[in-house]
Amino acid sequence: MINFESDYTEGCIPEILDALAKAQKEQNTGYGMDPHCEHAAALIKEFFHAPDSDVHFLVGGTQANMTVIAHGLKPYQGVICAQSGHINCHETGAVEATGHKCLALPSKDGTITADQIEQLILEQKYNESYEHIVQPGMVYISFPTETGTLYTKDELQSIHDVCVKYGVYLFIDGARLGYGLCSRANDVKPEDLPKLCDVFYIGGTKVGALFGEAVVINNKALNKDFRYSIKQHGGMLAKGWLLGIQFETLFSNNRYMKISAHAMAMAEKLIQALKDKHYTFQFEPAANQIFVIMENAQINDLRTAFAFHTNGVIDKDHTAIRLVTSWATPEENIDQLIKAL
Amino acid sequence: MINFESDYTEGCIPEILDALAKAQKEQNTGYGMDPHCEHAAALIKEFFHAPDSDVHFLVGGTQANMTVIAHGLKPYQGVICAQSGHINCHETGAVEATGHKCLALPSKDGTITADQIEQLILEQKYNESYEHIVQPGMVYISFPTETGTLYTKDELQSIHDVCVKYGVYLFIDGARLGYGLCSRANDVKPEDLPKLCDVFYIGGTKVGALFGEAVVINNKALNKDFRYSIKQHGGMLAKGWLLGIQFETLFSNNRYMKISAHAMAMAEKLIQALKDKHYTFQFEPAANQIFVIMENAQINDLRTAFAFHTNGVIDKDHTAIRLVTSWATPEENIDQLIKAL
Amino acid sequence: MINFESDYTEGCIPEILDALAKAQKEQNTGYGMDPHCEHAAALIKEFFHAPDSDVHFLVGGTQANMTVIAHGLKPYQGVICAQSGHINCHETGAVEATGHKCLALPSKDGTITADQIEQLILEQKYNESYEHIVQPGMVYISFPTETGTLYTKDELQSIHDVCVKYGVYLFIDGARLGYGLCSRANDVKPEDLPKLCDVFYIGGTKVGALFGEAVVINNKALNKDFRYSIKQHGGMLAKGWLLGIQFETLFSNNRYMKISAHAMAMAEKLIQALKDKHYTFQFEPAANQIFVIMENAQINDLRTAFAFHTNGVIDKDHTAIRLVTSWATPEENIDQLIKAL
Amino acid sequence: MINFESDYTEGCIPEILDALAKAQKEQNTGYGMDPHCEHAAALIKEFFHAPDSDVHFLVGGTQANMTVIAHGLKPYQGVICAQSGHINCHETGAVEATGHKCLALPSKDGTITADQIEQLILEQKYNESYEHIVQPGMVYISFPTETGTLYTKDELQSIHDVCVKYGVYLFIDGARLGYGLCSRANDVKPEDLPKLCDVFYIGGTKVGALFGEAVVINNKALNKDFRYSIKQHGGMLAKGWLLGIQFETLFSNNRYMKISAHAMAMAEKLIQALKDKHYTFQFEPAANQIFVIMENAQINDLRTAFAFHTNGVIDKDHTAIRLVTSWATPEENIDQLIKAL
Repeated sequence: MINFESDYTEGCIPEILDALAKAQKEQNTGYGMDPHCEHAAALIKEFFHAPDSDVHFLVGGTQANMTVIAHGLKPYQGVICAQSGHINCHETGAVEATGHKCLALPSKDGTITADQIEQLILEQKYNESYEHIVQPGMVYISFPTETGTLYTKDELQSIHDVCVKYGVYLFIDGARLGYGLCSRANDVKPEDLPKLCDVFYIGGTKVGALFGEAVVINNKALNKDFRYSIKQHGGMLAKGWLLGIQFETLFSNNRYMKISAHAMAMAEKLIQALKDKHYTFQFEPAANQIFVIMENAQINDLRTAFAFHTNGVIDKDHTAIRLVTSWATPEENIDQLIKAL
Repeated sequence: MINFESDYTEGCIPEILDALAKAQKEQNTGYGMDPHCEHAAALIKEFFHAPDSDVHFLVGGTQANMTVIAHGLKPYQGVICAQSGHINCHETGAVEATGHKCLALPSKDGTITADQIEQLILEQKYNESYEHIVQPGMVYISFPTETGTLYTKDELQSIHDVCVKYGVYLFIDGARLGYGLCSRANDVKPEDLPKLCDVFYIGGTKVGALFGEAVVINNKALNKDFRYSIKQHGGMLAKGWLLGIQFETLFSNNRYMKISAHAMAMAEKLIQALKDKHYTFQFEPAANQIFVIMENAQINDLRTAFAFHTNGVIDKDHTAIRLVTSWATPEENIDQLIKAL
Repeated sequence: MINFESDYTEGCIPEILDALAKAQKEQNTGYGMDPHCEHAAALIKEFFHAPDSDVHFLVGGTQANMTVIAHGLKPYQGVICAQSGHINCHETGAVEATGHKCLALPSKDGTITADQIEQLILEQKYNESYEHIVQPGMVYISFPTETGTLYTKDELQSIHDVCVKYGVYLFIDGARLGYGLCSRANDVKPEDLPKLCDVFYIGGTKVGALFGEAVVINNKALNKDFRYSIKQHGGMLAKGWLLGIQFETLFSNNRYMKISAHAMAMAEKLIQALKDKHYTFQFEPAANQIFVIMENAQINDLRTAFAFHTNGVIDKDHTAIRLVTSWATPEENIDQLIKAL
Repeated sequence: MINFESDYTEGCIPEILDALAKAQKEQNTGYGMDPHCEHAAALIKEFFHAPDSDVHFLVGGTQANMTVIAHGLKPYQGVICAQSGHINCHETGAVEATGHKCLALPSKDGTITADQIEQLILEQKYNESYEHIVQPGMVYISFPTETGTLYTKDELQSIHDVCVKYGVYLFIDGARLGYGLCSRANDVKPEDLPKLCDVFYIGGTKVGALFGEAVVINNKALNKDFRYSIKQHGGMLAKGWLLGIQFETLFSNNRYMKISAHAMAMAEKLIQALKDKHYTFQFEPAANQIFVIMENAQINDLRTAFAFHTNGVIDKDHTAIRLVTSWATPEENIDQLIKAL
């Protein structure tokens, strides 16, 4: 059985396990105040050309999202997001549990536009009974999105400009950031990101690490006291150097990009094959998650050799399936799937 | 200037002020443990044929909503509502501030259906990753709705049945309950309500009182420790008898229904006139809020003599306006408006 | 039965009821945006010599406390208070329900000192693991305290200075403010208050009104968007002018001080009589709540003619009782109690 | 520099790293639904003789505490704990951030008694204004405590009985459980624990693992929907098998007890030496954290070769220091410290 279910079914790149083994004999200060975290932060700031940003290491994505959002919002503020945004759909109301509403905008492909955001803010700001309505305090977008699509640099710039105009933070969820950056469809450079948003996070869990997300805060006001929020939300790992070591490894020797590029090469080979065979897609594929529409009979056939999730019924004969590649996908798995199609 | 802006622009029916004046020389125990509250509760239970229900008096609607919902939900549960539901739109995220997500369903006329609710529950219950999704724990509907429409008894019964089937509480927001009950379009009797839901509240603020909402809990499990929740959410009025006296007065001599019937007579006279003049409505009017579509030029003309709110642009030449009648609306105001149309 | 149980057993001063009756024929804009609220705010600002402060009207004390505290604190901050502080003891965890810890300091008489506060802040700020500890963000004190004592102006000044030094808000709960200001033991003038704290509230519920507390914010940063927080916490009364009318009445013709002075004259007459009869006090009495220690047998005797609460066992033969005077206490009640002692 | 600062300065036992390396080639289902978690749970249930308990794996202690407490309490309930309890002092208000008050009891040695708990519950239950007070819903104790002391089996039984009597959950924080179980001073057997409380957790982070705490729920009502709460609080590790593998390893071949016994042998050797040299202790030492009082001059001397934390000033010449042993403490470190004393 070849598995295309997700990008978190394998452990980590071997260099990370080696580094962890090597550190076994060390004694380190807890809570992320160790040399590995310091070094990892320096490497990340160098990679993103962001000498003035601050880097914090958290364990998982939901934790990173709820911590950043709860930290950045005032009690009566909410976070603008796509209806399909991870915080709105797949985090068991973690954001609401911190007291904040997700102000969800409709989206066909997982992205939202600067116009939608501005309109929502304007409706709020110029409403007769404005204080009866949740005040937008942050915009949350995912790069790539949960549906495997990407924002262009222009789109990000426009969203960023709207956020600046209205004094609203912009937060980019990069759970799969590497895959987005390495997509052929992408025109956003790493060094663009710190200029385009107040905070983003670099996914480790889905991109080569055992676990861990690096939150990069580009706005000093937002960074103030952020470690209190990490601790309060249960995200301050006692042995924080485990996170430091992983990101040190990922951001040395350009590994983060190399392994992401591999995943995207695998995805793009598969996408091309699907296009050649005239399959249609639920969302135009641009990252490592491919949502392709198939006949139900064919899906059943494929299931005998391949594992994958479905993503909604299209019509009585067709269903969308989700195929995910990752840093760990062997090319022969792709080849076998292409052969089977 | 004749005011059709809302149903809370006047004080209260004169009998309430008289009763408050009469009570001036009394000394009463605080926090709703007084004879007036006891008597008011008895009158309400009699009116709704609900001898086993429990009645609590709160000051306002947002307070009643957030207290009932926070009290009834487990931390990881959310409340199903219409996208246009008051809790979703006009309470500054009060429900989210208690940690719970509003699971908003699309609605054209302010109502949601048993089918929509069941589908949402099913999606959640049979989802592969169910614990990643907010669990529905309560359904919130408004009677009448925020857009002046009503549920039929059959519709309420169907929603109630779905709620029972899946173990989800049903909560009816009756901020304008009297107007709904006295509408010609209504087939729900007062005695139906306690059988049709776990909890509802009887609006006082908008129906003849200075302030106050009576929460009627028909489910003993939900009622347990409810007074703790009232206190915690700042809703336990020190001089609780002020609420008791108001509801005592409203539910004596059938006053609640009489004043509601007046408001509806005024609304229905206006609706008929509008229909006669071939106006179209944004929502089919059934209660004391009438959403009618007019030419922008005419709206400007009307504004010289009448105050009202708009409710969204229909097209470049037309806008919807909201006209609200209440227990306090003099018939001559209606006549003047009809004349002006 | 003569009642000394509390200062909220009667309705309101007659002038308030008259004013409410007079306003019956008015139509007013909702949510506190009416001329009565505007006028009441102006009177309050004049009384406290605080032209630049902002005034908001809320319904009750718990609501005022939780709204101010939740509005002023960052998510990882807590509020310093006396262990006997109302927010720590008698509000069903309303502050914690908004996500914040009460950092309770021990207190013998209901007051806390600038030294205690500074020491707590220093422990936090210079702790090795500071981000593992709740950050103090506000100090909450009551004037008078819950145990009937007062802060001197010097004490308030010292607390204020510590708060300024460490960038922590100072909030004074004035649920019984009038009684404190009119105490013979008091040296704080109304015009001192806005200079001594960031925010305080003027109790109406216990000082002549039917209900209502006026929150006076002296710090523009704290005032920003405060109305959102009022709404979110269910404290925005639809018919806000009911609050405006009450505070308009209380702050016209010096009524707030006159009725408070009456309550204190009654309290002080009783205190003097108790001292003359060599009773001892649980707390040195300075406001309208008198905590006096009596033999259990005598307490039982008194109960045949007087209603009051106890406040803790002193030893097997003695108990503390609480005697409360108010704006509504007739002098003959005091005389009868003195006679009975 | 020899480090006695804490029990989380080293990575993990080598067998865990081997097991993680071995699993590198596996593909596993996410979120703890994998065979390693299943196997680890089985081993834990066997070790504690608790076939009917449910086991969940979380990443860290603060996360485990806030998740269990928030899951188990109703909104108006609080958790009884020692003033020195970890949740009350060192988690940045994580419990309050979920809306619940820590009802902290004074404690001289880090333990609280059944009598204290019963008295607090009684004060609450029989208070005249009970609904104005936070309702106790859970008792939280640490075994061993934060100050290195232990509860006897009789003490736990008494606390358990009080909890059962009043319908309050009992939660035991076992961040250092192994050290407590292996202490010479201990009379609690592993198989006692599931009978003595509703829920406890087995610390991995401080006892040989890289990270991870195993929450064991012995009460089915409390276990219901617990995975929702894990997810909502950001505690559901995507690659959950990393936790499974670690606890599989710890609970195979009696490793958890063996490594804990080593830590305690080291602690007890040090305690004996300190007693022989007539040192006095801040708290009577019973686990792997030793709080010993020393002259400041001697502390400064020790610091040239040993790292440790202080724990409060005793008098102007004396300070308490904290010496911590762990599974990773070499005996020669102990010997060198004894020699230096």
